[in-house]
Amino acid sequence: KKRALKRWILTFAVGVVQAVVATSCNFASRSMTSRKYDYIYELLNPSFVESSTAFWNFCLIQVLLCAVASMFVYIEPVSGGSGIPEIKCYLNGIDLPRVVRIKTLICKVIGVTFSVSGGLPVGKEGPMVHSGAVVAAALSQGKTTCWGVDTSFSKFSDFRNDREKRDFVACGAAAGVASAFGAPIGGVLFSLEEGASYWSTKLTWRAFFCAMTTILTIQAITNIDTWWGQTEVGRLFSFGEFNSISGGASNYSIWELPIFGLIGCLGGLIGAVFNAANEHLTIWRMKRVNHSKIRRVIEVIVISLGVSVVSFATPLIWGRCTELPQDMQDWSNQEKNLVESLVPFQCEPGKEYNEVASLIFTEADTAIKQLFHFREGGGEDNSTFSSGALFLFFVPYIMMSSVVYGIAVPSGLFVPSLLAGAAFGRLCGHLLHKLDHTSGTFADSGTYALMGAAAVLGGMARMTISLTVILLEATGDMQYTLPLMIVLMSARFTGNVFNEGLYDIHIHLKHIPFMEPEVPPVAERNEIVAGQVMSAEVKCLRPVERAGVVYDLLRSCQHGTFPIVDTASGGTLYGTASRDMLCTLLQRRAFGNPDVLDDYDNSDTLGTRRLSPLVQWDTIERAYPRYPNIDDIDIGEADRNCWLDLRPYANTAPYTINETASIQRTYRLFRTLGLRFLCVVNHNNQVVGIITRKDLLPESLTESLLRGRNAHVMEDDIHDLS
Amino acid sequence: KKRALKRWILTFAVGVVQAVVATSCNFASRSMTSRKYDYIYELLNPSFVESSTAFWNFCLIQVLLCAVASMFVYIEPVSGGSGIPEIKCYLNGIDLPRVVRIKTLICKVIGVTFSVSGGLPVGKEGPMVHSGAVVAAALSQGKTTCWGVDTSFSKFSDFRNDREKRDFVACGAAAGVASAFGAPIGGVLFSLEEGASYWSTKLTWRAFFCAMTTILTIQAITNIDTWWGQTEVGRLFSFGEFNSISGGASNYSIWELPIFGLIGCLGGLIGAVFNAANEHLTIWRMKRVNHSKIRRVIEVIVISLGVSVVSFATPLIWGRCTELPQDMQDWSNQEKNLVESLVPFQCEPGKEYNEVASLIFTEADTAIKQLFHFREGGGEDNSTFSSGALFLFFVPYIMMSSVVYGIAVPSGLFVPSLLAGAAFGRLCGHLLHKLDHTSGTFADSGTYALMGAAAVLGGMARMTISLTVILLEATGDMQYTLPLMIVLMSARFTGNVFNEGLYDIHIHLKHIPFMEPEVPPVAERNEIVAGQVMSAEVKCLRPVERAGVVYDLLRSCQHGTFPIVDTASGGTLYGTASRDMLCTLLQRRAFGNPDVLDDYDNSDTLGTRRLSPLVQWDTIERAYPRYPNIDDIDIGEADRNCWLDLRPYANTAPYTINETASIQRTYRLFRTLGLRFLCVVNHNNQVVGIITRKDLLPESLTESLLRGRNAHVMEDDIHDLS
Repeated sequence: KKRALKRWILTFAVGVVQAVVATSCNFASRSMTSRKYDYIYELLNPSFVESSTAFWNFCLIQVLLCAVASMFVYIEPVSGGSGIPEIKCYLNGIDLPRVVRIKTLICKVIGVTFSVSGGLPVGKEGPMVHSGAVVAAALSQGKTTCWGVDTSFSKFSDFRNDREKRDFVACGAAAGVASAFGAPIGGVLFSLEEGASYWSTKLTWRAFFCAMTTILTIQAITNIDTWWGQTEVGRLFSFGEFNSISGGASNYSIWELPIFGLIGCLGGLIGAVFNAANEHLTIWRMKRVNHSKIRRVIEVIVISLGVSVVSFATPLIWGRCTELPQDMQDWSNQEKNLVESLVPFQCEPGKEYNEVASLIFTEADTAIKQLFHFREGGGEDNSTFSSGALFLFFVPYIMMSSVVYGIAVPSGLFVPSLLAGAAFGRLCGHLLHKLDHTSGTFADSGTYALMGAAAVLGGMARMTISLTVILLEATGDMQYTLPLMIVLMSARFTGNVFNEGLYDIHIHLKHIPFMEPEVPPVAERNEIVAGQVMSAEVKCLRPVERAGVVYDLLRSCQHGTFPIVDTASGGTLYGTASRDMLCTLLQRRAFGNPDVLDDYDNSDTLGTRRLSPLVQWDTIERAYPRYPNIDDIDIGEADRNCWLDLRPYANTAPYTINETASIQRTYRLFRTLGLRFLCVVNHNNQVVGIITRKDLLPESLTESLLRGRNAHVMEDDIHDLS
Repeated sequence: KKRALKRWILTFAVGVVQAVVATSCNFASRSMTSRKYDYIYELLNPSFVESSTAFWNFCLIQVLLCAVASMFVYIEPVSGGSGIPEIKCYLNGIDLPRVVRIKTLICKVIGVTFSVSGGLPVGKEGPMVHSGAVVAAALSQGKTTCWGVDTSFSKFSDFRNDREKRDFVACGAAAGVASAFGAPIGGVLFSLEEGASYWSTKLTWRAFFCAMTTILTIQAITNIDTWWGQTEVGRLFSFGEFNSISGGASNYSIWELPIFGLIGCLGGLIGAVFNAANEHLTIWRMKRVNHSKIRRVIEVIVISLGVSVVSFATPLIWGRCTELPQDMQDWSNQEKNLVESLVPFQCEPGKEYNEVASLIFTEADTAIKQLFHFREGGGEDNSTFSSGALFLFFVPYIMMSSVVYGIAVPSGLFVPSLLAGAAFGRLCGHLLHKLDHTSGTFADSGTYALMGAAAVLGGMARMTISLTVILLEATGDMQYTLPLMIVLMSARFTGNVFNEGLYDIHIHLKHIPFMEPEVPPVAERNEIVAGQVMSAEVKCLRPVERAGVVYDLLRSCQHGTFPIVDTASGGTLYGTASRDMLCTLLQRRAFGNPDVLDDYDNSDTLGTRRLSPLVQWDTIERAYPRYPNIDDIDIGEADRNCWLDLRPYANTAPYTINETASIQRTYRLFRTLGLRFLCVVNHNNQVVGIITRKDLLPESLTESLLRGRNAHVMEDDIHDLS
């Protein structure tokens, strides 16, 4: 009861802290960006146009900022990238080292502030999700390794185990999505989708509460000047307000839905190409760059220089000035603000603007809003962004995004793909409008921009229902539910024909045993049983084992769990023992006298008499999560013959599976219960093998299947499996 | 591959058919209601006010309509009520008889049309969810019992097994929610939440697709007159359009959020009282009414008469005429339409209206829209609904809803609780406005009405995240996300202090072994192991068993699954056999010669030689879902000694659990894998007991705990368990 209360209080704290982190990060990057643009003001204005000094200053600032960002990744390599693959893995049950440490949090948040203001095509949304997860992990544990702070004396120690920590991380991730997109429900769904194996109603409510707290805190912070009156934005990231153009009715016609579906397919294609390009680049990087920290920093500097040059060159190539719209009486405030943020790159300020520069020399979310909301003038020349400008922006931008994701800076991918997609979608809208000049047949370009943004993001990330909800919440208008669903669904299906989502690609490139929610198709197509995929070389222990044997076993392999086999009763499974526990027992020297019995196997008379002093369960728990390493433990020659009685510590009811169970059933057991290890037994409950996550990856399954086939001499369709 | 395609096509068909069903039902009930009001036009107008004939006509029509509705429940008792508890059970893995039959669908849909037009405080949203589920089940199976249609020859037979059918039902339920509330994402979440045990990403996408198809079809049908131009409503149920009152900013202030939380708590209280009242009534009904079909019909007639009298009496008691608002230049179309739908009950039509009658003598969703959107005039007397009228409507209406739910008509609860809640919320708004006359301090009454609606619905149903999303989608305005979350959360927590959600109450009253997503608290608080809750009297079979033994066993009990124990090898678990399979085998007379061996146990030489003719697995599958009943099978005396070889049919890798496994672990296994039966084994894989769903219900656990306590002579805190 009391523990439940503490849990809720901590969840509340996670929400508040994440809101503060997100707001500060947002504020910092915004003010740094605007200072940057203030500094290079001459560049954006026609007066100083000849001055190449301005250009070099611009490059210098951008490169410097990026270099600072990469310094943080130099300090803590895990803080590079978006962090979403890492959080997916964590929720899936894989504990990657250093992902949820405070040091990572700090490097990530400060780093992303610099990389965003450094003008790279990156967003801070992915890092915010990571940040939420770390905040949750840190607060729930109340101790850090890097500073040696430990509050074991306090109330926090209740939550020091894998399950509680994972639950907190799930809540934190929800809060992270909520803070990044103002999408509390989308955040809860994101955690639910990724961590489905561990999910429960109670946890849903906690994640819900955590996301709610974050939103509330952000609203409270951003509206402090109006004394918490009517909230103006209430979120750090916004698509702006979509208004019904012809009051009451939707902004699109129902017969346009197939067109949206088509845009979704195109977005899926773009996403697939994007993913393929990034995959190849990442493989190249893993070979050539990533092994040296210095090379990674140099890469960042080179790429950021390249990005600066391209950012400068594209508006120059466009080189056309467009007149600002004059007749704005009936325009909304939002539209007027957007007009103000147009950039007069080499044009007369206040009268003209450069279309391409207006998309590049501004914050990404302003650019997205412009693409979504800038009114089409109606006539041809009067369109606020011409098709050529959109194309000139879209192609280099999406290529740069693909190159940048993976370099050693914290970088999210949501905003770049949304921006590129919005340009793409608006372009599609323009082309359709060219087909039909009389206004009103097709939806306005803003709607098409929204669809394009969803299509490209969906084609890249391939997230399911949570992405729809996140986009809906960011859009804030329910009339787009159906079109967005259609777009995301067609983007996903088109993309999946070619490759996986970008996050999954990165997870697989790192060879992480991530368990997809579905049984791999190779197992669906062929009938494999658990006995065929298990590894038969099992390293077992006896319920009462000599300390030397345990020590040697631990040193000889890196397994996390060992089956305990009762040799006295014919080799049946007694239970399992975890590596962490065995190490702690060895370190604590929980040995019994070697003279008590000569050999365990012949000792039916042993009964339940304990052979070694008892280490309190509490002692083992307190070491969480950093148990002693076997390499740091040494046992003397004299101790090697001592008996270690594992019976009080063994998990005597581990999940097991029969060797004749189908692989589907095994997979389902692993995935739904979030297991890492499973004993395979025969009909007499004798251990015949073990299955780990690695054995269930598609590659391993294919291999096992080949082995199995060979054994049964059925080689007729091996070519199927390639 | 081909099968997957068929699955998608069928899912598409489910979406389309459900949309057609929902649209027809909606159209029928709307036109019947409007005809009813046309007929009793005199009653609503002052001219005929003295005529008691009109009143008697009104009562007669209402009672007749309700009687027709109850006739359909007379034909098919399962079609009574909302159907949501039944669908929850089905998705939970409990197959209630006749729930997903076509006959149920027809009775439910026609019945709900009549009960809604009969003026009862019921909605058609719950029944729509049920309808979607049945449509899915029927289409996926392609055969019905009641008409004898069977398309086994066709392509449908692929999906005739429990798992496929359940997946289709989950998709159908999503489509049902989508059609009822225009909430596709809420629908998917509803299915996901209820059927979490069976969920997978692929299924999420199918449900998503199914819900999307439904919405699309409904939009296509409702917008057929504009040639699928810009969609006007696109959903059958709507909260109307919420407009920002002061452009751009939200309609409420941030500091009002705690007030919303308070309204949530009040709503939770109201919901708890509602549930408690309905629970007692239902218990009374189960004792006194439900055993006789005639009594149930009479109850419906009596109650519908009572409802008619109350509906008539309340506006009469109010007896005040309010002037219609005159100055409506700046009002939106929606508001003007709402003013037109006000009812001049005994007042001068076109000039005045009766406030209470305007809420009663109209369709429920129009009344909800009025409460949400009717403008507050500003001054005191000029308010469109006065506090007194709201109170006079709220109290009898919620009491009637509580009485009506459970009588023998198809009846949803969403709309009545939303309507009652809206009145309650608006009342709260009025009271707050009384505190402060200067406008603008508190949000408008419409916003409070929305919060009240969410609070009462949340307090009654206690659904989690799916309810929030459904309400959000129905509201169509994202600015209400945070307030709605706060309201629903506080309503849920307040309500849970007193009792469960109404659906859960009804499930428990029917003694259905529904597995909650959480381990019951009694198991959390105490350490119980599987061995303590299992039933030790296991009815086992041998791998090769005499037909007579099997026959007698099947007749002697109603178990669904039997463990097969290998007596030849010391009583270890060989596998399991289902009742359905055994019955089919007996019916097909799959017996072997009784002379082949004398007794199975002494036959180590048996090897894998088969003893009885093989019944094709296909034959057994084809009988799905109506396998032969043991009572219809008779075996001759001569057959009793024949051998039935179960080895080819046995499931040789059933899920098992060790007797020392904790109850939490057992529960988790049951819930996440959706099991109905689990063999408990000891360390030697010998069957020591079985656990069924019933053994894991809180009551059974408490009982087992008492038994276990007594065994260990630890009686110190038994009083805790009462």
